[in-house]
Amino acid sequence: MKPILRFPGIDRRVLLSSLAMLPVLSASLRSTVAAAQAQRDPLPSWNDGATKASIIDFVAHVTAQGGPYFQPFAAVLDGDLKAVAASGEKDVAELVAVTHAGMTTAEFEKIVADWLVSARDRRFKRPYTELVYQPMLELLAYLRANGFKTFIVSGGGIEFMRPWTDQIYGVPPEQVVGSSIKTRYEMRDGAPVLFRLPEVNFIDDKAGKPIGINEHIGRRPIAAFGNSDGDLEMLQWATLGTGGARFGLIVHHTDAEREYAYDRQSHFGKLDVALDAAAVNKWTVVDMKNDWKRIFAFE
Amino acid sequence: MKPILRFPGIDRRVLLSSLAMLPVLSASLRSTVAAAQAQRDPLPSWNDGATKASIIDFVAHVTAQGGPYFQPFAAVLDGDLKAVAASGEKDVAELVAVTHAGMTTAEFEKIVADWLVSARDRRFKRPYTELVYQPMLELLAYLRANGFKTFIVSGGGIEFMRPWTDQIYGVPPEQVVGSSIKTRYEMRDGAPVLFRLPEVNFIDDKAGKPIGINEHIGRRPIAAFGNSDGDLEMLQWATLGTGGARFGLIVHHTDAEREYAYDRQSHFGKLDVALDAAAVNKWTVVDMKNDWKRIFAFE
Repeated sequence: MKPILRFPGIDRRVLLSSLAMLPVLSASLRSTVAAAQAQRDPLPSWNDGATKASIIDFVAHVTAQGGPYFQPFAAVLDGDLKAVAASGEKDVAELVAVTHAGMTTAEFEKIVADWLVSARDRRFKRPYTELVYQPMLELLAYLRANGFKTFIVSGGGIEFMRPWTDQIYGVPPEQVVGSSIKTRYEMRDGAPVLFRLPEVNFIDDKAGKPIGINEHIGRRPIAAFGNSDGDLEMLQWATLGTGGARFGLIVHHTDAEREYAYDRQSHFGKLDVALDAAAVNKWTVVDMKNDWKRIFAFE
Repeated sequence: MKPILRFPGIDRRVLLSSLAMLPVLSASLRSTVAAAQAQRDPLPSWNDGATKASIIDFVAHVTAQGGPYFQPFAAVLDGDLKAVAASGEKDVAELVAVTHAGMTTAEFEKIVADWLVSARDRRFKRPYTELVYQPMLELLAYLRANGFKTFIVSGGGIEFMRPWTDQIYGVPPEQVVGSSIKTRYEMRDGAPVLFRLPEVNFIDDKAGKPIGINEHIGRRPIAAFGNSDGDLEMLQWATLGTGGARFGLIVHHTDAEREYAYDRQSHFGKLDVALDAAAVNKWTVVDMKNDWKRIFAFE
């Protein structure tokens, strides 16, 4: 019999909103791919309008080889533990620390894999891996097709995300930045293991996001995509006080019918100061209800 | 006038021996590239013999698509602060903490860049960026041409290495793992900065290397290249207790004339227990004097 496994506080939204990425433009292939892309709509689940245009304009801008804004790398990111982030960093810390310490990293990975297969979202009655935003998947693919390297930068546990991000988002483990607990290296019967300790190593939320980006990626993204106040500092770090073209985007959850609607008063994924900052800094704000033709692939 | 800049304890050997990498085999291009590679010697600075053959055999083994040992990723790595590592982890910690805290990451990057341009090695009278092992550059290129993703995993400061690893080793900043100090995120006149604090964040040496690999890369390499006892745990982590083909290699400094000769008694880059472990675990040991036709590109 399988043990009952729980990821406290990790509900549907972890997968739903951990659509994070930092792309690095690799200098090659760009013009060819861009030409091919121009043939068809690269973002079919996005309604036409100012939001979609802002994305396509930015990508065209920074990928025009020899153009004044041609830049060597760029980034898109986001992701946080909605349900937990709302109650503050301390809870995130506790969650990360308490959740599944006292086992090896390999054992934890197995638990995550098993959980993903069996768990179902209460409202949508689907595996969490199906509850990812189709428009964001298209955006990731579009950026990669244009030479961007995409990263996930999430408040979620790094070891919780890594087993599935490659398959679901096309982002390999080494391009995932997240919260973590400390580990200890040990030899057991001639085989090395990393043992998970009940001690917080790093909280990748709010001001932690630029720190995590610097530590893992080592250069500043030129684009960042978020959806809550926990992404404010990441968006600042990617877009402010640097030369060249930069792009910030915030997904505003405005669709209670197809998904959820919340912002300033939410206890669950607050979007308040970041929404004000978007207006000041000219970040694009996605109105989910109006900008997204389709939210999930299964619709 | 430029200020006098020093990297205490960071001598020629930092650049000389930070030839570290973790490759991830990307499933594409392999056979084509392998076929092209077969046309000519991919490792011209390596003398023919058992060492060179062991490398080429391994790569052929794990890149034979559909073969029994075909694996999705692999790794090569190493690197540590020789002069400092010899005197123990505490000194590495102090070095990392004390060196250039109290400034922003951007300011530190500028200092490193300036230092690299002006500094010369006392013995070789050359910029440190020229004192990298040509055979290891060839090895990195060979692995990448065969679909490996290469990483640097060094005891050296991560922010010290990142400004030059892409140009010198072809390893971009996000694929460098190293020691670090803590940083603090701040807004200064509307622009975000990361301020370097005089506090150790992580020491990427000895048992720290598997921890750093897990944190930054999130999967186990299938190959690792080291040159000191500081690389023992990394080599174990990459090669022991897992299925499939694995490759461990240790560079033994045996050439006092062209470079240096040291091992068990050295106070400077000790290679003692790792040399014993190499025999037990069947890791390849490079005899620098006999296995390397050429050590530096300028020879």
